[in-house]
Amino acid sequence: MPETIAIVGLGLIGSSIARGARTYGLARKIVAVDRDAAVLDRVRALGIADQASASFAEGVEQADLVILCVPVCSIGAVAAELAPHLKPGAVLSDVGSVKGSVVAAVMPHLKSGNAFVPAHPVAGTEYSGPDSGFSTLFSNRWCILTPPDGTDPAAVAAVTAFWEGLGAIVETMSPEHHDLVLAITSHVPHLIAYNIVGTAADLETVTQSEVIKFSAGGFRDFTRIAASDPTMWRDVFLTNKDAVLEMLGRFNEDLAALTKAIRWGDGDALFDLFTRTRAIRKGIVAMGQETAEADFGRARPDAKSTGG
Amino acid sequence: MPETIAIVGLGLIGSSIARGARTYGLARKIVAVDRDAAVLDRVRALGIADQASASFAEGVEQADLVILCVPVCSIGAVAAELAPHLKPGAVLSDVGSVKGSVVAAVMPHLKSGNAFVPAHPVAGTEYSGPDSGFSTLFSNRWCILTPPDGTDPAAVAAVTAFWEGLGAIVETMSPEHHDLVLAITSHVPHLIAYNIVGTAADLETVTQSEVIKFSAGGFRDFTRIAASDPTMWRDVFLTNKDAVLEMLGRFNEDLAALTKAIRWGDGDALFDLFTRTRAIRKGIVAMGQETAEADFGRARPDAKSTGG
Repeated sequence: MPETIAIVGLGLIGSSIARGARTYGLARKIVAVDRDAAVLDRVRALGIADQASASFAEGVEQADLVILCVPVCSIGAVAAELAPHLKPGAVLSDVGSVKGSVVAAVMPHLKSGNAFVPAHPVAGTEYSGPDSGFSTLFSNRWCILTPPDGTDPAAVAAVTAFWEGLGAIVETMSPEHHDLVLAITSHVPHLIAYNIVGTAADLETVTQSEVIKFSAGGFRDFTRIAASDPTMWRDVFLTNKDAVLEMLGRFNEDLAALTKAIRWGDGDALFDLFTRTRAIRKGIVAMGQETAEADFGRARPDAKSTGG
Repeated sequence: MPETIAIVGLGLIGSSIARGARTYGLARKIVAVDRDAAVLDRVRALGIADQASASFAEGVEQADLVILCVPVCSIGAVAAELAPHLKPGAVLSDVGSVKGSVVAAVMPHLKSGNAFVPAHPVAGTEYSGPDSGFSTLFSNRWCILTPPDGTDPAAVAAVTAFWEGLGAIVETMSPEHHDLVLAITSHVPHLIAYNIVGTAADLETVTQSEVIKFSAGGFRDFTRIAASDPTMWRDVFLTNKDAVLEMLGRFNEDLAALTKAIRWGDGDALFDLFTRTRAIRKGIVAMGQETAEADFGRARPDAKSTGG
């Protein structure tokens, strides 16, 4: 296990890593690094790190493992600033939701004695900031590593062990394949959710009040991921453009076919698709990636007290 | 309160109404009517009705209130068959997710001594059948009534009281406006979810196994409503075509603008939309239509036992 880890950026992910590292005993010393004074104050008040610093140099100079948890468009500048201060043998890693652009942004700044092991834990909630993290966020979730060819195997092993310590299942693939997979499993779903919530908010024939009141018919499910951090997601779409546009193209082709089926009253085509898609969810539940409880097991506010 | 209610079709909604009527004491006698022998067997085994019948005539002849809970394309045929057997003064109602076509299908069959009060409780889960229902499904959810002009006010009051007894908040509007509102709050969200799950299942560059494993990045939220009853949803799209196509058109226009913003790297446009949409979810939580818990408060299967 690393003596000292430094976490740069204490949002949902960074603060969850800090909590998890402490809870599961994954490092002797946890250093939190953030440029935002208010965030550092919360980190100190929450007691989730042994040291909290606004200085990159001071924050990383002793670290054996440094994890960048900043929005992906900032990663290059952050890497440029802190890479010179990494000690020989220290491993640099990240948690960015896009890997191709992150690898390109970080690698040029690395000194020869340090390895970069890009990582992406496929986990999160719609909340942000140091208060929103929790130690079990990564439990039973996949963490994808995309080490460039030639990366020191010992560095990859160290990052693998760290994420397994947090409860994650580690899988390795190329940055390009990662970006394609995440385009369909995460980025385009978020885009679609953001879009439909925006469309609903802009109608002149249906009021926002009506959209909100009657949201339990399906709409409200979309609003959760459309409440995700705007900075993080802006950066995702700016840096995974090609894969997102490719997947969007396929989404649109399929939607056009579905629209035609509706226009022409093709009930069989609709029924066939709706039957196929039920099986996908069963697969996700079977893989332990989703609860089988109806309605996500959502708490029911103000439910009548008798029964159910 | 009605002496006797008859529920025709004991799926998720019908069986929830039966349970709720018993739990909250909303009728002295509950009659379940279903053509499916297996469903009737379950209804008897579950003990959720006082009488279970496959015969429409026998099932409704004593009822003061009859609620049709069958797929919307079947409602006309069912109404044609049972309307002659309604006793004078009995009120007919339904729970269909589309109101314009239901009104058109049912009204011609009504005898002059009976009123039809169309209803739609905006509530549900992704599960189906008599085992899936529960008495608090409608608690704190809206139930929309769309009585045609000239409907007996006493009949509307009776149906209103019934739904309020189930814990719902009742609101009235025209069938046309209902169909527009539900197109955006429910029907198009379901269509988009069905579509993206289908698109993800059909990729040749990303395997279904990968889609399932990495689904916790956003995709899995969509799979719940894409696991909804295929028969019910086929019928919804066959009967609310115009409103759905209108809303889809707007969705597509907005998506095209968003796609262009991504292609041109317009980070500000993305950030602005993503900030706006966060506020919508806050409104839904404030209206009591959604939990504030992170990630819907989803149970975490196999979470490491220490910590949060």
